[in-house]
Amino acid sequence: MTMKMDQAALSAFMRRDFPQVADDFIIESVTPEELTVRLVVSEKHLRPGGTVSGPTMFGLADVALYLAIQARIGPVALAVTTNCSIDFLRKPAAGRDLVAVARLLKLGRVLAVGDVMLYSIGEPAPVARSGLTYSIPPVQG
Amino acid sequence: MTMKMDQAALSAFMRRDFPQVADDFIIESVTPEELTVRLVVSEKHLRPGGTVSGPTMFGLADVALYLAIQARIGPVALAVTTNCSIDFLRKPAAGRDLVAVARLLKLGRVLAVGDVMLYSIGEPAPVARSGLTYSIPPVQG
Amino acid sequence: MTMKMDQAALSAFMRRDFPQVADDFIIESVTPEELTVRLVVSEKHLRPGGTVSGPTMFGLADVALYLAIQARIGPVALAVTTNCSIDFLRKPAAGRDLVAVARLLKLGRVLAVGDVMLYSIGEPAPVARSGLTYSIPPVQG
Amino acid sequence: MTMKMDQAALSAFMRRDFPQVADDFIIESVTPEELTVRLVVSEKHLRPGGTVSGPTMFGLADVALYLAIQARIGPVALAVTTNCSIDFLRKPAAGRDLVAVARLLKLGRVLAVGDVMLYSIGEPAPVARSGLTYSIPPVQG
Repeated sequence: MTMKMDQAALSAFMRRDFPQVADDFIIESVTPEELTVRLVVSEKHLRPGGTVSGPTMFGLADVALYLAIQARIGPVALAVTTNCSIDFLRKPAAGRDLVAVARLLKLGRVLAVGDVMLYSIGEPAPVARSGLTYSIPPVQG
Repeated sequence: MTMKMDQAALSAFMRRDFPQVADDFIIESVTPEELTVRLVVSEKHLRPGGTVSGPTMFGLADVALYLAIQARIGPVALAVTTNCSIDFLRKPAAGRDLVAVARLLKLGRVLAVGDVMLYSIGEPAPVARSGLTYSIPPVQG
Repeated sequence: MTMKMDQAALSAFMRRDFPQVADDFIIESVTPEELTVRLVVSEKHLRPGGTVSGPTMFGLADVALYLAIQARIGPVALAVTTNCSIDFLRKPAAGRDLVAVARLLKLGRVLAVGDVMLYSIGEPAPVARSGLTYSIPPVQG
Repeated sequence: MTMKMDQAALSAFMRRDFPQVADDFIIESVTPEELTVRLVVSEKHLRPGGTVSGPTMFGLADVALYLAIQARIGPVALAVTTNCSIDFLRKPAAGRDLVAVARLLKLGRVLAVGDVMLYSIGEPAPVARSGLTYSIPPVQG
């Protein structure tokens, strides 16, 4: 199980292909099985009341596993999210960044599956958990 | 099965409680079992390539069923999303608004469950389908 | 959107490939988009208390969409369930058969997605709803 | 975080309340956060081809988290499954028991949420992963 992009390569890939959101995410660590990414929470991520919104948490989980997959398959073929099931467990702590820990559980020929736990930085209890599936398009030769 | 808020009351409720996003959504119709809401797609909803982003579709499904529940329970107790499973079926058509059709399948004492289909306006094939669960907090007396 | 197996062909396919369970299921109708199948409930499907068990409901939803897919792709390639999200809405009525209505929402080259509603025969309110994804193996030439 | 039933009490609870299936399951370990249960695979759990069926895997995941919850809340109130999302990752190894590792991620007043990983005994790669939600009925006083 080798990686085609390490932390530096993944960060550059994100900056080049997703410039609009690249500043929101900091890749903290990556191994062939697990990737940790931090969401730098700002005004646009909040809903009334000051906690991080549901779509933002969904988006963080999606980005985390997407990056874990791209680390393994490289920057050419781009994984496409086909399914996400997410459980919202607790209200995120106000004024704290979120961190996502993504585990890649299967990387097949056409499908990749993993799960993601989301935490408010510094809190042991997760704020959400998620399982996601991606389809991996064939690389055009 | 009576409603506590009709289309006009729901629109006012959204404008008052969610002023940041109220302009994005137009409630098109509401009955006790089904609610249709349109997302007025703009730049902020798009991802690279020009199609509507995954978090935006998640957010639309979430808003649609939330409004369907609030129509039934009124504006006092606020439903909280506890689970969402979403399947992304097709890339949305570029430059088109999205419409969500939410069906309330169960409205219990503490839980509400429903499903939502998302369409690009004018296209018969859905771009996503979703099942969502909400917890309904007890009304403080 | 043509079908490769009609109701009679599907029933024969089930009897040949799944003889252990073929007697439990009656295919009631099939079109390119929707299939209805009835579970003949017997002792083995019940849990303590006399209502249909969760695994039985899961199995019925799975069979229903599986048959809807096979009706379209024919008896050669066999779809494999990759994901199921199921909401249990109400306790099934005791002593009644269950009926599943499966809708095929996407039939792609490698993935098929649909949803299934489960009912106690004669009751309008669904007992469960489910979204399922299948991978479709390449046909060996 | 204390437990109201330990391994011996849980096994007795299962034997008393679920006599039909109690022999199929062996509770291997239980802590306040995690429970491991083994499915003794027999003929009735298999599908054509000799591997464990989908409904059996669903049922194992469901039992595992159910027992993890009952260990914490005791044998009086009985948790009811409201949602399950399950990803099937690999075909289980033929002729091997399955083991489920359930983690309780949230135990609230009315809802409990957790995830479950399923393995063929002796294999490091999971055969399925699942997230489940249960409603916890109020204890009648």
